[in-house]
Amino acid sequence: MTAEIICIGTELLLGDILNSNAQFLAQELAKLGIPHYYQTVVGDNLSRIHEVIKIASKRSQILIFTGGLGPTPDDLTTEAIATFFETPLEEKQEIIEDITQKFAERGRQMTVNNCKQALIPQSADILPNLTGTAPGIIWQPIPNLTIFTFPGVPSEMKQMWRDTAIPFLKSQGWGEEIIYSRMMRFRGIGESALAEKVNHLFSLTNPTVAPYASMGEVKLRVSAKAKNSDTAEKLILPVAKEIEDIAGEDYFGYDHDTIASVVGKILLERGETLSVAESCTGGGLGSMLTEVSGSSSYFMGGIIAYSNHIKIQQLGVLEEFLTEYGAVSAIVARQMAKGIQVKFNTNWSISVTGIAGPKGGTENKPVGLVYVAIANPDKEVESYEFRLGEKRGREAIRHLTSCYALDKLRRELLAN
Amino acid sequence: MTAEIICIGTELLLGDILNSNAQFLAQELAKLGIPHYYQTVVGDNLSRIHEVIKIASKRSQILIFTGGLGPTPDDLTTEAIATFFETPLEEKQEIIEDITQKFAERGRQMTVNNCKQALIPQSADILPNLTGTAPGIIWQPIPNLTIFTFPGVPSEMKQMWRDTAIPFLKSQGWGEEIIYSRMMRFRGIGESALAEKVNHLFSLTNPTVAPYASMGEVKLRVSAKAKNSDTAEKLILPVAKEIEDIAGEDYFGYDHDTIASVVGKILLERGETLSVAESCTGGGLGSMLTEVSGSSSYFMGGIIAYSNHIKIQQLGVLEEFLTEYGAVSAIVARQMAKGIQVKFNTNWSISVTGIAGPKGGTENKPVGLVYVAIANPDKEVESYEFRLGEKRGREAIRHLTSCYALDKLRRELLAN
Repeated sequence: MTAEIICIGTELLLGDILNSNAQFLAQELAKLGIPHYYQTVVGDNLSRIHEVIKIASKRSQILIFTGGLGPTPDDLTTEAIATFFETPLEEKQEIIEDITQKFAERGRQMTVNNCKQALIPQSADILPNLTGTAPGIIWQPIPNLTIFTFPGVPSEMKQMWRDTAIPFLKSQGWGEEIIYSRMMRFRGIGESALAEKVNHLFSLTNPTVAPYASMGEVKLRVSAKAKNSDTAEKLILPVAKEIEDIAGEDYFGYDHDTIASVVGKILLERGETLSVAESCTGGGLGSMLTEVSGSSSYFMGGIIAYSNHIKIQQLGVLEEFLTEYGAVSAIVARQMAKGIQVKFNTNWSISVTGIAGPKGGTENKPVGLVYVAIANPDKEVESYEFRLGEKRGREAIRHLTSCYALDKLRRELLAN
Repeated sequence: MTAEIICIGTELLLGDILNSNAQFLAQELAKLGIPHYYQTVVGDNLSRIHEVIKIASKRSQILIFTGGLGPTPDDLTTEAIATFFETPLEEKQEIIEDITQKFAERGRQMTVNNCKQALIPQSADILPNLTGTAPGIIWQPIPNLTIFTFPGVPSEMKQMWRDTAIPFLKSQGWGEEIIYSRMMRFRGIGESALAEKVNHLFSLTNPTVAPYASMGEVKLRVSAKAKNSDTAEKLILPVAKEIEDIAGEDYFGYDHDTIASVVGKILLERGETLSVAESCTGGGLGSMLTEVSGSSSYFMGGIIAYSNHIKIQQLGVLEEFLTEYGAVSAIVARQMAKGIQVKFNTNWSISVTGIAGPKGGTENKPVGLVYVAIANPDKEVESYEFRLGEKRGREAIRHLTSCYALDKLRRELLAN
């Protein structure tokens, strides 16, 4: 028994909106353990919607439609489904009454257009919409095929899904097994290198292990299918533990953990404090640290030293070093880290200086060259060089610089 | 001649990621005037990818694939396309060399897995990937069908689309009538209020005018259809000018303009400098300013004063004011602005202090309360209070704070 998501709306084909409805429904189906293998987007066009229904009804047993339930002439979903299954539409008095009342509550008059929203296929059930005027349907037009329709407005769709669709699915005995996942997060190792190390786990069937990559981070998703989350977690834990052991320090956290929250947790446990001195990131490193609620317990602040003058005046960087080695150099990074640690009187500090581009690169110091320095409580300063490549673009270079700097701090914290 | 977007990846079916690639490609096809009627998402499964190719190749002439080009065993896109069209795969030496070099640049060793990424169908052309290891293909497996493949990583896909796919499509005479748009940007006015003011323009047909809203910003898209961009621009300009006149100072720029780049342009023209003192944004304001390439000409830097101690010690905020009025107060914001302006010796300065939440709110000072102060070259300081609401969440409150602060600076720059 498999489900299929069909999103209807020309605005999706024009790229005017992101298809967040498909993501929501996908997550919900996964949680219910109902497999779904296809998602389709199609415009507000009768014959093309028919074409999609024809294909989907052959390969799936649950079709979930979103969009096209509005009052305007280009809203065609209900009509398309009814005509495909050669079933007449019927005006439902209870829908008319519901819409009339909602308009009255808002001090408005229902328009003639809205009457269209009261038309549903004979023998279909109403899927009530508590907040908007567009109800959906639950309908079994032929044996072994159940159709759900939802409006495109995400908040209405979600409420209807939770209040009506989930209980209905469960009452049919569907979605009894849940899928429970843990997203494990890694830094400092590439996707293919990590995949090689845990290759033997990819053939597991329950839980399953699958790799994901995003900018500056590699992830492994461990998913188990079970009757409830406790049982699923018991299946996941030994595999997660094995992965942790294999990855060592490259593993940093899971699910909602970020590199900043993990660093924060360690600092908080130890009662230590942190400050930053930023050049190329211009505040991005501090911003990443303070995304974490409660970060004021360990993060004192920092200096954005975007100009050389500020590096000299505020951080005590020696002018001759700037002249001799340049602002983007290991020695200047180390002086920046030391400067902020002393000035802000913190246990730890991080500094970053680099060339974010697109201009400012030279042969010796290309765009993407970054120095990070970390000062520890013993006042020792360690510096690191990163070459992030010229082609990534300013935004990615700045983002990765902050990520790499925090990861270096994490490793130094673990070692100290 | 129609195109179709096919996104491959089990992570999309699990709802792990939003399908922003489909939105990007949809927008790009619309700009090129290439119609597309269907989008499909399918998992990393050979027979189901075959099923999708079978359907799509019958109804569309351009198939655009994203995802499934990685080095791991579940990356199946190239293999699926090749086997569907019964064409052997061939290892391309130039791809092996390119991947080897990229690994070398990052100080890593290429893995055996990556060799897979060098396999492409005989007679297909390479669609080069400048930054990642996964190249795509451009391939005409049968007459009247052109296939493009792109990696799922959005930044790589976009670069490849712009650098190679668009020129290729144009060289084929596709996308001859272009849709050319100008996205006009506004701040300080709501979507419905702006819509009322320009209501008479919504009925235009070429160019068309359509409203969009995103966080803290309202946009109007003015789009013209024409043979080339010059002709389109001539259609757009008078309408854009009329909108500018209607909106006044609430209009701040268009297309890639950001509030930070517009502020930067004004400062640069006037040869004036800026510094920031940040509390609740923790570096986000500086980060937004330094997203602009060349910002070092006018942005000197700032102090992230996350703790009260740093506000006192580094910015000269009076301890009794912190005790009496609290860190989140107009008077502390003004002292912070003054402190950083003097310390960093800049013409202008901005300070922000607020409660980003989710904790830390009180009845009098709820989450979302923010004070912004701006110091001008005459050393006068103006402060502003914003109430951004408790329900938006920490991330949005911090982001909007930086946006609002920069917009206030923009308006003060225009008035001074």
